Amino acid sequence: MTKAEIITQRVQDLRAWMQKHKLDAYIFPSTDPHAGEYVPEHWKTREWISGFTGSAGTAVVTMKHAALWTDSRYWLAAEEQLAGTPFEVVRCGRNVATAEELIEWIVTKYNHVVDIRVGLDAWTNTATSVKEMNKVIDESFCQMVDLVTDLSPVDELWAQRPPLPTSPIVLQPLELAGRTTADKLSDIRRELKRTGADGLLVTQLDEIAWVLNLRGSDVHCTPVFVSYLLILADNDDKPGPQAILYVNEDKLDYTVRTYLMDNGIQLCPYEAIQTDLLNGDAAGTDLQLCAIQYDPDVTCHALCTAVERGNTLCAVQKPSPIPALRAIKNPVEIEGFREAMLRDGVAMVKFLRTLSPLPEEGEAPAPLNITEMGVDELLTSLRAEHPGFRGLSFDTIAGYGAHGAIVHYEATPETDVPLEPRGLLLLDSGAQYDCGTTDITRTIPLGPLTDEERRDYTLVLKGHIRLATAVFPEGTSGTQLDVLARYAMWQDHKNYGHGTGHGVGSYLSVHEGPHQFRMNYVPAQLQAGMTVTIEPGIYIAGSHGVRIENTMLIVPDPPLTPNSAPASPSLTAGMPAGQRGPSWLRLEPLTLCPIDTRPIIREMLLPDEIDYLNRYHARVREALLPRLDDPADRAWLIAATQPFS
Amino acid sequence: MTKAEIITQRVQDLRAWMQKHKLDAYIFPSTDPHAGEYVPEHWKTREWISGFTGSAGTAVVTMKHAALWTDSRYWLAAEEQLAGTPFEVVRCGRNVATAEELIEWIVTKYNHVVDIRVGLDAWTNTATSVKEMNKVIDESFCQMVDLVTDLSPVDELWAQRPPLPTSPIVLQPLELAGRTTADKLSDIRRELKRTGADGLLVTQLDEIAWVLNLRGSDVHCTPVFVSYLLILADNDDKPGPQAILYVNEDKLDYTVRTYLMDNGIQLCPYEAIQTDLLNGDAAGTDLQLCAIQYDPDVTCHALCTAVERGNTLCAVQKPSPIPALRAIKNPVEIEGFREAMLRDGVAMVKFLRTLSPLPEEGEAPAPLNITEMGVDELLTSLRAEHPGFRGLSFDTIAGYGAHGAIVHYEATPETDVPLEPRGLLLLDSGAQYDCGTTDITRTIPLGPLTDEERRDYTLVLKGHIRLATAVFPEGTSGTQLDVLARYAMWQDHKNYGHGTGHGVGSYLSVHEGPHQFRMNYVPAQLQAGMTVTIEPGIYIAGSHGVRIENTMLIVPDPPLTPNSAPASPSLTAGMPAGQRGPSWLRLEPLTLCPIDTRPIIREMLLPDEIDYLNRYHARVREALLPRLDDPADRAWLIAATQPFS
Repeated sequence: MTKAEIITQRVQDLRAWMQKHKLDAYIFPSTDPHAGEYVPEHWKTREWISGFTGSAGTAVVTMKHAALWTDSRYWLAAEEQLAGTPFEVVRCGRNVATAEELIEWIVTKYNHVVDIRVGLDAWTNTATSVKEMNKVIDESFCQMVDLVTDLSPVDELWAQRPPLPTSPIVLQPLELAGRTTADKLSDIRRELKRTGADGLLVTQLDEIAWVLNLRGSDVHCTPVFVSYLLILADNDDKPGPQAILYVNEDKLDYTVRTYLMDNGIQLCPYEAIQTDLLNGDAAGTDLQLCAIQYDPDVTCHALCTAVERGNTLCAVQKPSPIPALRAIKNPVEIEGFREAMLRDGVAMVKFLRTLSPLPEEGEAPAPLNITEMGVDELLTSLRAEHPGFRGLSFDTIAGYGAHGAIVHYEATPETDVPLEPRGLLLLDSGAQYDCGTTDITRTIPLGPLTDEERRDYTLVLKGHIRLATAVFPEGTSGTQLDVLARYAMWQDHKNYGHGTGHGVGSYLSVHEGPHQFRMNYVPAQLQAGMTVTIEPGIYIAGSHGVRIENTMLIVPDPPLTPNSAPASPSLTAGMPAGQRGPSWLRLEPLTLCPIDTRPIIREMLLPDEIDYLNRYHARVREALLPRLDDPADRAWLIAATQPFS
Repeated sequence: MTKAEIITQRVQDLRAWMQKHKLDAYIFPSTDPHAGEYVPEHWKTREWISGFTGSAGTAVVTMKHAALWTDSRYWLAAEEQLAGTPFEVVRCGRNVATAEELIEWIVTKYNHVVDIRVGLDAWTNTATSVKEMNKVIDESFCQMVDLVTDLSPVDELWAQRPPLPTSPIVLQPLELAGRTTADKLSDIRRELKRTGADGLLVTQLDEIAWVLNLRGSDVHCTPVFVSYLLILADNDDKPGPQAILYVNEDKLDYTVRTYLMDNGIQLCPYEAIQTDLLNGDAAGTDLQLCAIQYDPDVTCHALCTAVERGNTLCAVQKPSPIPALRAIKNPVEIEGFREAMLRDGVAMVKFLRTLSPLPEEGEAPAPLNITEMGVDELLTSLRAEHPGFRGLSFDTIAGYGAHGAIVHYEATPETDVPLEPRGLLLLDSGAQYDCGTTDITRTIPLGPLTDEERRDYTLVLKGHIRLATAVFPEGTSGTQLDVLARYAMWQDHKNYGHGTGHGVGSYLSVHEGPHQFRMNYVPAQLQAGMTVTIEPGIYIAGSHGVRIENTMLIVPDPPLTPNSAPASPSLTAGMPAGQRGPSWLRLEPLTLCPIDTRPIIREMLLPDEIDYLNRYHARVREALLPRLDDPADRAWLIAATQPFS
């Protein structure tokens, strides 16, 4: 059976199941009970039903139709993957389809009859998404649609459903984490005091891993482990556990168990969370919880319902305090990032040298003899040579030529193509090292380029540098700066449909909030110590793609010195609240890897842009040379970081 | 009695009145029942009690304390005006104090006793502000504070309170308005259909003037008239009036009455609005209103309460559809703006020539012999020479030297200083012409400048040009572009505490929404046909101020031509919703007046910035020369618009 035939069969089976349960439609989101970006195989229900492998998308099946919503990063990939299946691709503007879009689509397919029963799973849908669906139904489709959240077809129909992952959990030592779990818990408990909650339900796996200084390997590319964490507020009268970790205990060895016990973290089976929330107590303790805080945006409907309908007196619905605490890296984490970038830079240099050998090394335009998948393999193996390598931080995007225009392209045996000595290779990749996570994109010329390729490359580079050189007052948000990366290309009527940057975790998730660079409103303010990527791009469908990305660190400007005086008040007088204060910030590149200067159209760069490029390259050279032993690598780096003029 | 003594007496009288009415505090906002920026003298209660003349601020009086909140534009001016009075100045970040700030201040002054009775006037406070106060009280100060909205001291205590204005209302002819009232009403009624309301209560005077193509002179600098407008939804069954205008009928002559009657606008006394809303009917008609739409942000508490407690079945609280319709100027209005800018440019050139005569004209550094107030007088008289001049569009800001750093400085006999042949004069001014409203700021060197003055001038100019040359996709908001005007000065750790730009009315309010350039989130999208100012600045307290402002028109890029094809899909593929679509926009300067090049530090300007300046000056020269008869004016303009290099 072809893949398309398998999917067609699954949809048929699902429809039979729907008929049995009197359901007219079923919605499959791409998340799991932990609202993760990457989800364990066990919860890839949307991929199971549709075959679509992208990280974002929503599948809906009715008795006669089936559709998959996905955002612009995946439009082309989805078309290819869903060809021959019952699914049509619906292009949507945001990451996920809105409740309105989904319900309206279903109602339209049923010609607005009444009593359409729409099913979705209370565990893999967040409380917010279920609430929004109910709101849309109440406001616009009342009498027409009923939402059914207690039926799921996957246990019955998914024959070889992968089990819950059971990989071991390990300590992230203090030498790399930089702050003890005890200190992190007391920071969080201080926040809890302000909200008055006596328990904080943490559902996001990377938040749990950060708080506990533990890492796992349950999820692709992100070193986390499946669990829930219930952090208990300070109770001076009754000193009890600090937190309860709901996890499969088989994953813990003696060291980790002892470590958790020493930190006052009690263990409970993963499945016990729902009962505990229903009972409003912390299992095995005699604590009765009065107010449980959780974020309905990242907590599944099943658990929110447990809190709301259970014995807890009240539900405090607020964002988790953890992302804001985690976003500001401590000095040990920052040092870890620098080390990770050195390792990553060495791997990138060795890789780039094989793609673009110096003239005296290889025969001039030698056949490249490598495919997109080969690029991934080679670069991964070079990264894996480093101590502390723990895998990739996301699936490598190696898109040659027209594939570069598919924003989240992942080469597969079906799509893989050999590189040829012309055009551009877009290479977006990153690794997990014990000391930090990396994320870098370079666009590499493989031979002659068209004028448009060179122009687009230069426009993207100009955008990258304009944002990279920004100085800005504390209190500025990423939304306010995003346009700096777009200004140059907008003059050419070119744009890109993704954000310009995101935070990066410290040996954790490669996409970390709460701050971002993006056009859409993101209120989180940029602060010193945050990591953030800069990754503008231009994508010309059917032709080529360009993206240039460095991971940056937000630092004070000027750098703090023991004697530095606060800025003169006259500089900050007249600034609105949130932009007042003596502190100015700028961005410092963490990523260490040459940016190819060959595609640049010289006349399009401003003197300060050339200056930035040359200062960056001097720094890359100085940092990486001591790590390179092979004289050929050294020679290549020196050539690649020559001043551009 | 000095001004300070008068204010002190008023506060004493108020406290006696408060004691009689068992009030512990009284709050005076700066608005009127129409939530206007400029308010008729009749409603200047905050100015009456405090003496502070700025356009934004909130005064609070308790039995022992008094304070005035105002934003950074007015911090320095308020300190000067309130010296010697019982009022302290509280610096706040936003335009007005938040409910939380006010209530907390009052509670603190009373050492957190309970049952503090706080008074405010239901007519001069919006429904939203009263609601916010009640929310703050409920959440944080319950049991401590009671809000009393039905007592006002002004009728009793304000001895010579100015009466309601009675100036005549005149037609804005179709040759200048460009769109009939009938068409505007049908646009609005189409919007009403979507919300389901059968009446739209319009409270903002500039909205009423725009809809009815009428102008008045009840308010300083804004050609509006005091009134309410109730626009009725289409009622196919019962053709009745289109709208009801609540206004003092003495203001209308026969022509205007006939015009209104022809347009189906019924008249009612101004005071009748409250009773009509309570009864839920449109006076004199037999229409019973079921759902009245209004914007609680700009509707006073008294009228909202009338709708909510009256016979109307429901209140539809939504923003008015009018600002979005009005913001996109029609071709006739755009032509009117161009004509207004020609008149204004001629006046500015004649004025600038007297300040900076060509060397061969005056004796080199001749004594300027003019004060800040003289600048206002001279410039106003030059503007008044034009046909169609209707007054200023706001109070002229002529700030010499250190006064330039007071963002909304208005010279008074007490503060007025003569100009001297050194330093900078910041001159922000504008006029109302029958065909359009103008708003322009120039910063004029009067002689030798310090290095910092020159540097700040150049940084402001760079910011102005960076934003002025932006090309951006439809769907972009002003918040997303604002940073372009700040990028250069941020590199120097300089900033300004006001927005970068605002819409401008067509012979209406000089500040018009819904779009703006500002850092704080403003969702309104920029669209072709909108006017908007660009006015970055730098203000160094005690030293100098720089601001350079042009009024711009948002236009398609490239300009629309009959045969213009839509942009290629590849350019827009991959853009998020709201940024998709083939349309690109840019800004075209409407203001026609040279920008002084003498303070510029040449090396700080980029080639494209110099190019922009030279293209702008060529355009200014070409446009204004035909309007200048005096050979000396012509010679001056030609000299002032020489290519800068």
